[in-house]
Amino acid sequence: MGRPRTLPAVLLATPDETEAQFYEALQQADLERMVALWSDEEEVACVHPRGARQVGLDAIRASFEEMFARGGVDVRATQVRRLVTAGLAVHHVVEELQVMSAEGPRKAWVLATNVYLKTPLGWRMIVHHASPGEPLDLHGLAEPPSTLH
Amino acid sequence: MGRPRTLPAVLLATPDETEAQFYEALQQADLERMVALWSDEEEVACVHPRGARQVGLDAIRASFEEMFARGGVDVRATQVRRLVTAGLAVHHVVEELQVMSAEGPRKAWVLATNVYLKTPLGWRMIVHHASPGEPLDLHGLAEPPSTLH
Repeated sequence: MGRPRTLPAVLLATPDETEAQFYEALQQADLERMVALWSDEEEVACVHPRGARQVGLDAIRASFEEMFARGGVDVRATQVRRLVTAGLAVHHVVEELQVMSAEGPRKAWVLATNVYLKTPLGWRMIVHHASPGEPLDLHGLAEPPSTLH
Repeated sequence: MGRPRTLPAVLLATPDETEAQFYEALQQADLERMVALWSDEEEVACVHPRGARQVGLDAIRASFEEMFARGGVDVRATQVRRLVTAGLAVHHVVEELQVMSAEGPRKAWVLATNVYLKTPLGWRMIVHHASPGEPLDLHGLAEPPSTLH
Protein backbone atom coordinates (compact mmCIF):
# COMPACT_ATOMS: atom_id res chain seq x y z
CA MET A 1 0.00 0.00 0.00
CA GLY A 2 1.47 3.35 -0.97
CA ARG A 3 3.94 1.35 -3.07
CA PRO A 4 3.62 1.35 -6.86
CA ARG A 5 2.12 -1.83 -8.25
CA THR A 6 4.94 -1.92 -10.75
CA LEU A 7 8.48 -0.60 -10.67
CA PRO A 8 9.16 2.46 -12.87
CA ALA A 9 10.89 1.66 -16.16
CA VAL A 10 13.87 3.81 -15.18
CA LEU A 11 14.78 1.25 -12.50
CA LEU A 12 14.60 -1.57 -15.04
CA ALA A 13 16.49 0.08 -17.89
CA THR A 14 18.80 -2.91 -18.47
CA PRO A 15 18.62 -6.63 -17.67
CA ASP A 16 21.41 -6.11 -15.11
CA GLU A 17 19.42 -3.43 -13.29
CA THR A 18 16.34 -5.67 -13.17
CA GLU A 19 18.49 -8.51 -11.87
CA ALA A 20 19.95 -6.24 -9.17
CA GLN A 21 16.39 -5.35 -8.11
CA PHE A 22 15.51 -9.04 -8.00
CA TYR A 23 18.37 -9.99 -5.69
CA GLU A 24 17.84 -6.95 -3.46
CA ALA A 25 14.19 -7.86 -3.08
CA LEU A 26 15.27 -11.42 -2.20
CA GLN A 27 17.79 -10.18 0.38
CA GLN A 28 15.33 -7.76 1.95
CA ALA A 29 12.25 -9.99 1.75
CA ASP A 30 10.58 -7.12 -0.12
CA LEU A 31 7.49 -8.80 -1.58
CA GLU A 32 6.04 -5.72 -3.29
CA ARG A 33 9.30 -4.94 -5.05
CA MET A 34 9.71 -8.60 -6.02
CA VAL A 35 6.28 -8.77 -7.60
CA ALA A 36 6.66 -5.36 -9.27
CA LEU A 37 9.62 -6.37 -11.42
CA TRP A 38 7.91 -9.28 -13.18
CA SER A 39 6.27 -8.98 -16.58
CA ASP A 40 2.49 -9.04 -16.77
CA GLU A 41 2.62 -11.84 -19.35
CA GLU A 42 0.33 -14.69 -18.32
CA GLU A 43 2.83 -17.51 -18.51
CA VAL A 44 5.62 -16.12 -16.35
CA ALA A 45 7.08 -18.95 -14.32
CA CYS A 46 9.24 -19.60 -11.31
CA VAL A 47 10.88 -22.71 -9.88
CA HIS A 48 12.51 -22.40 -6.46
CA PRO A 49 15.22 -24.89 -5.44
CA ARG A 50 13.50 -28.23 -4.77
CA GLY A 51 10.18 -26.45 -5.22
CA ALA A 52 7.18 -26.80 -7.44
CA ARG A 53 6.63 -25.01 -10.72
CA GLN A 54 4.71 -21.77 -10.24
CA VAL A 55 3.02 -20.36 -13.34
CA GLY A 56 1.41 -16.90 -13.34
CA LEU A 57 2.08 -13.92 -11.12
CA ASP A 58 -0.46 -14.87 -8.43
CA ALA A 59 1.22 -18.23 -7.84
CA ILE A 60 4.66 -16.63 -7.98
CA ARG A 61 3.63 -13.97 -5.47
CA ALA A 62 2.32 -16.62 -3.08
CA SER A 63 5.57 -18.59 -3.32
CA PHE A 64 7.69 -15.55 -2.44
CA GLU A 65 5.28 -14.58 0.33
CA GLU A 66 5.81 -18.01 1.88
CA MET A 67 9.59 -17.70 1.45
CA PHE A 68 9.74 -14.19 2.87
CA ALA A 69 7.72 -15.21 5.93
CA ARG A 70 10.99 -16.86 6.98
CA GLY A 71 12.91 -13.62 6.31
CA GLY A 72 15.27 -12.40 3.62
CA VAL A 73 17.72 -14.64 1.82
CA ASP A 74 21.44 -14.00 2.27
CA VAL A 75 22.20 -14.42 -1.43
CA ARG A 76 24.80 -13.03 -3.80
CA ALA A 77 24.69 -13.39 -7.59
CA THR A 78 28.02 -14.55 -9.00
CA GLN A 79 29.43 -15.81 -12.28
CA VAL A 80 26.68 -14.30 -14.40
CA ARG A 81 26.74 -15.48 -18.02
CA ARG A 82 24.61 -13.44 -20.39
CA LEU A 83 22.89 -14.17 -23.69
CA VAL A 84 21.25 -10.97 -24.90
CA THR A 85 19.24 -10.40 -28.07
CA ALA A 86 17.16 -7.41 -29.16
CA GLY A 87 14.23 -8.10 -26.90
CA LEU A 88 15.36 -10.84 -24.58
CA ALA A 89 18.10 -11.48 -22.07
CA VAL A 90 18.97 -14.84 -20.56
CA HIS A 91 21.21 -14.76 -17.49
CA HIS A 92 22.79 -17.84 -15.97
CA VAL A 93 23.69 -17.11 -12.38
CA VAL A 94 25.49 -19.03 -9.66
CA GLU A 95 23.82 -17.87 -6.46
CA GLU A 96 26.01 -17.99 -3.37
CA LEU A 97 23.94 -18.29 -0.20
CA GLN A 98 24.72 -18.16 3.49
CA VAL A 99 22.42 -20.62 5.21
CA MET A 100 22.09 -21.89 8.77
CA SER A 101 22.73 -25.56 9.32
CA ALA A 102 22.95 -27.73 12.43
CA GLU A 103 26.70 -27.03 12.37
CA GLY A 104 26.19 -23.25 12.13
CA PRO A 105 26.28 -20.97 9.09
CA ARG A 106 27.57 -22.44 5.86
CA LYS A 107 27.66 -21.61 2.20
CA ALA A 108 25.33 -23.14 -0.35
CA TRP A 109 25.06 -22.73 -4.09
CA VAL A 110 22.11 -22.51 -6.40
CA LEU A 111 22.07 -22.52 -10.22
CA ALA A 112 19.57 -20.01 -11.59
CA THR A 113 18.34 -19.22 -15.06
CA ASN A 114 16.78 -15.75 -15.18
CA VAL A 115 15.05 -14.53 -18.33
CA TYR A 116 14.12 -10.89 -18.95
CA LEU A 117 11.85 -9.46 -21.62
CA LYS A 118 12.22 -5.92 -22.99
CA THR A 119 8.91 -4.09 -22.63
CA PRO A 120 7.81 -0.44 -22.78
CA LEU A 121 8.00 -0.63 -18.97
CA GLY A 122 11.64 -1.73 -18.93
CA TRP A 123 13.26 -5.16 -18.83
CA ARG A 124 10.96 -7.42 -16.86
CA MET A 125 11.47 -10.87 -15.44
CA ILE A 126 9.59 -13.70 -17.13
CA VAL A 127 11.49 -16.73 -15.76
CA HIS A 128 13.35 -17.59 -12.58
CA HIS A 129 14.35 -21.24 -12.48
CA ALA A 130 16.62 -22.16 -9.59
CA SER A 131 17.95 -25.55 -8.59
CA PRO A 132 20.48 -26.77 -6.03
CA GLY A 133 24.11 -26.74 -7.14
CA GLU A 134 27.22 -28.24 -5.65
CA PRO A 135 30.41 -26.19 -5.47
CA LEU A 136 32.53 -28.90 -7.03
CA ASP A 137 30.05 -29.36 -9.83
CA LEU A 138 29.94 -25.75 -10.81
CA HIS A 139 31.35 -25.16 -14.21
CA GLY A 140 33.86 -22.34 -14.07
CA LEU A 141 33.70 -21.88 -10.31
CA ALA A 142 37.32 -22.72 -9.68
CA GLU A 143 39.87 -20.59 -11.46
CA PRO A 144 42.26 -22.74 -13.44
CA PRO A 145 45.52 -22.91 -11.51
CA SER A 146 47.72 -20.36 -13.19
CA THR A 147 50.95 -22.14 -12.36
CA LEU A 148 49.94 -25.10 -14.49
CA HIS A 149 49.79 -24.88 -18.22
CA MET B 1 29.50 -38.39 -40.04
CA GLY B 2 27.23 -38.25 -43.02
CA ARG B 3 24.88 -36.31 -40.72
CA PRO B 4 24.37 -32.58 -41.14
CA ARG B 5 26.14 -30.46 -38.54
CA THR B 6 22.90 -28.56 -38.08
CA LEU B 7 19.28 -29.53 -38.56
CA PRO B 8 17.53 -27.95 -41.56
CA ALA B 9 15.33 -24.99 -40.69
CA VAL B 10 12.27 -26.83 -42.04
CA LEU B 11 12.51 -29.26 -39.11
CA LEU B 12 12.67 -26.38 -36.64
CA ALA B 13 9.90 -24.20 -38.08
CA THR B 14 8.17 -23.68 -34.72
CA PRO B 15 9.26 -23.92 -31.08
CA ASP B 16 7.06 -27.01 -30.73
CA GLU B 17 8.84 -28.75 -33.59
CA THR B 18 12.24 -27.96 -32.11
CA GLU B 19 11.04 -29.26 -28.77
CA ALA B 20 9.82 -32.47 -30.37
CA GLN B 21 13.26 -32.92 -31.93
CA PHE B 22 14.86 -32.34 -28.54
CA TYR B 23 12.83 -35.02 -26.77
CA GLU B 24 13.24 -37.49 -29.62
CA ALA B 25 16.99 -37.01 -29.51
CA LEU B 26 16.87 -37.59 -25.76
CA GLN B 27 14.78 -40.76 -26.16
CA GLN B 28 16.99 -42.14 -28.90
CA ALA B 29 20.34 -41.02 -27.43
CA ASP B 30 20.95 -39.28 -30.76
CA LEU B 31 23.90 -37.02 -29.98
CA GLU B 32 24.29 -35.50 -33.44
CA ARG B 33 20.64 -34.54 -33.63
CA MET B 34 20.74 -33.16 -30.09
CA VAL B 35 23.70 -30.93 -30.83
CA ALA B 36 22.30 -29.86 -34.21
CA LEU B 37 19.19 -28.23 -32.76
CA TRP B 38 21.01 -25.78 -30.49
CA SER B 39 21.75 -22.19 -31.47
CA ASP B 40 25.33 -21.25 -32.27
CA GLU B 41 25.19 -18.39 -29.76
CA GLU B 42 28.17 -18.55 -27.42
CA GLU B 43 26.30 -18.45 -24.14
CA VAL B 44 23.84 -21.29 -24.67
CA ALA B 45 23.47 -23.16 -21.40
CA CYS B 46 22.20 -26.43 -20.01
CA VAL B 47 21.57 -27.70 -16.49
CA HIS B 48 20.72 -31.39 -16.12
CA PRO B 49 18.86 -32.56 -12.99
CA ARG B 50 21.31 -32.39 -10.08
CA GLY B 51 24.04 -31.55 -12.60
CA ALA B 52 26.49 -28.75 -13.13
CA ARG B 53 25.91 -25.71 -15.29
CA GLN B 54 27.20 -26.25 -18.82
CA VAL B 55 27.82 -23.11 -20.86
CA GLY B 56 28.67 -23.28 -24.56
CA LEU B 57 27.96 -25.97 -27.10
CA ASP B 58 31.17 -27.93 -26.49
CA ALA B 59 30.36 -28.38 -22.81
CA ILE B 60 26.72 -29.15 -23.60
CA ARG B 61 27.74 -31.75 -26.17
CA ALA B 62 30.06 -33.43 -23.68
CA SER B 63 27.29 -33.57 -21.06
CA PHE B 64 24.87 -35.27 -23.46
CA GLU B 65 27.60 -37.61 -24.68
CA GLU B 66 28.12 -38.76 -21.10
CA MET B 67 24.37 -39.12 -20.59
CA PHE B 68 23.82 -41.03 -23.84
CA ALA B 69 26.64 -43.45 -23.01
CA ARG B 70 24.08 -44.90 -20.58
CA GLY B 71 21.46 -45.07 -23.36
CA GLY B 72 18.36 -43.09 -24.26
CA VAL B 73 16.06 -41.52 -21.71
CA ASP B 74 12.49 -42.81 -21.44
CA VAL B 75 11.00 -39.32 -21.24
CA ARG B 76 7.72 -37.71 -22.21
CA ALA B 77 7.05 -33.97 -22.25
CA THR B 78 3.78 -33.09 -20.49
CA GLN B 79 1.95 -30.01 -19.25
CA VAL B 80 3.80 -27.62 -21.53
CA ARG B 81 3.18 -23.95 -20.73
CA ARG B 82 4.29 -21.50 -23.39
CA LEU B 83 5.32 -17.84 -23.37
CA VAL B 84 6.00 -16.81 -26.96
CA THR B 85 7.09 -13.41 -28.27
CA ALA B 86 8.23 -12.36 -31.74
CA GLY B 87 11.68 -13.87 -31.49
CA LEU B 88 11.64 -15.97 -28.37
CA ALA B 89 9.73 -18.87 -26.90
CA VAL B 90 9.91 -20.04 -23.31
CA HIS B 91 8.43 -23.47 -22.61
CA HIS B 92 7.89 -24.83 -19.13
CA VAL B 93 7.68 -28.60 -19.30
CA VAL B 94 6.95 -31.31 -16.78
CA GLU B 95 9.03 -34.25 -17.99
CA GLU B 96 7.68 -37.67 -17.08
CA LEU B 97 10.42 -40.29 -16.96
CA GLN B 98 10.48 -44.04 -16.58
CA VAL B 99 13.55 -44.91 -14.54
CA MET B 100 14.91 -48.12 -13.07
CA SER B 101 15.16 -48.31 -9.32
CA ALA B 102 16.09 -51.07 -6.87
CA GLU B 103 12.36 -51.85 -6.71
CA GLY B 104 12.02 -52.03 -10.48
CA PRO B 105 10.80 -49.43 -12.95
CA ARG B 106 9.14 -46.35 -11.54
CA LYS B 107 8.06 -42.90 -12.68
CA ALA B 108 10.01 -39.75 -11.95
CA TRP B 109 9.34 -36.13 -12.76
CA VAL B 110 11.60 -33.32 -13.87
CA LEU B 111 10.78 -29.63 -14.22
CA ALA B 112 12.36 -28.14 -17.33
CA THR B 113 12.61 -24.64 -18.70
CA ASN B 114 13.39 -24.69 -22.42
CA VAL B 115 14.09 -21.46 -24.28
CA TYR B 116 14.11 -21.18 -28.07
CA LEU B 117 15.40 -18.33 -30.21
CA LYS B 118 14.04 -17.58 -33.68
CA THR B 119 16.91 -17.52 -36.17
CA PRO B 120 17.20 -17.65 -39.97
CA LEU B 121 17.90 -21.36 -39.37
CA GLY B 122 14.66 -21.97 -37.50
CA TRP B 123 13.81 -21.92 -33.80
CA ARG B 124 16.90 -23.06 -31.95
CA MET B 125 17.42 -24.06 -28.35
CA ILE B 126 19.39 -21.66 -26.20
CA VAL B 127 18.49 -22.94 -22.71
CA HIS B 128 17.59 -26.29 -21.17
CA HIS B 129 17.38 -26.07 -17.38
CA ALA B 130 16.06 -29.20 -15.73
CA SER B 131 15.67 -29.97 -12.05
CA PRO B 132 14.08 -32.78 -10.05
CA GLY B 133 10.37 -32.45 -9.38
CA GLU B 134 8.02 -34.28 -7.09
CA PRO B 135 4.61 -35.39 -8.33
CA LEU B 136 2.79 -33.90 -5.36
CA ASP B 137 4.58 -30.61 -5.78
CA LEU B 138 3.71 -30.22 -9.39
CA HIS B 139 1.48 -27.29 -9.99
CA GLY B 140 -1.47 -28.33 -12.07
CA LEU B 141 -0.56 -31.99 -12.24
CA ALA B 142 -3.76 -33.24 -10.68
CA GLU B 143 -6.96 -32.49 -12.50
CA PRO B 144 -9.46 -30.82 -10.22
CA PRO B 145 -12.04 -33.43 -9.21
CA SER B 146 -14.95 -32.87 -11.55
CA THR B 147 -17.57 -34.17 -9.12
CA LEU B 148 -16.83 -31.32 -6.73
CA HIS B 149 -17.89 -27.80 -7.51
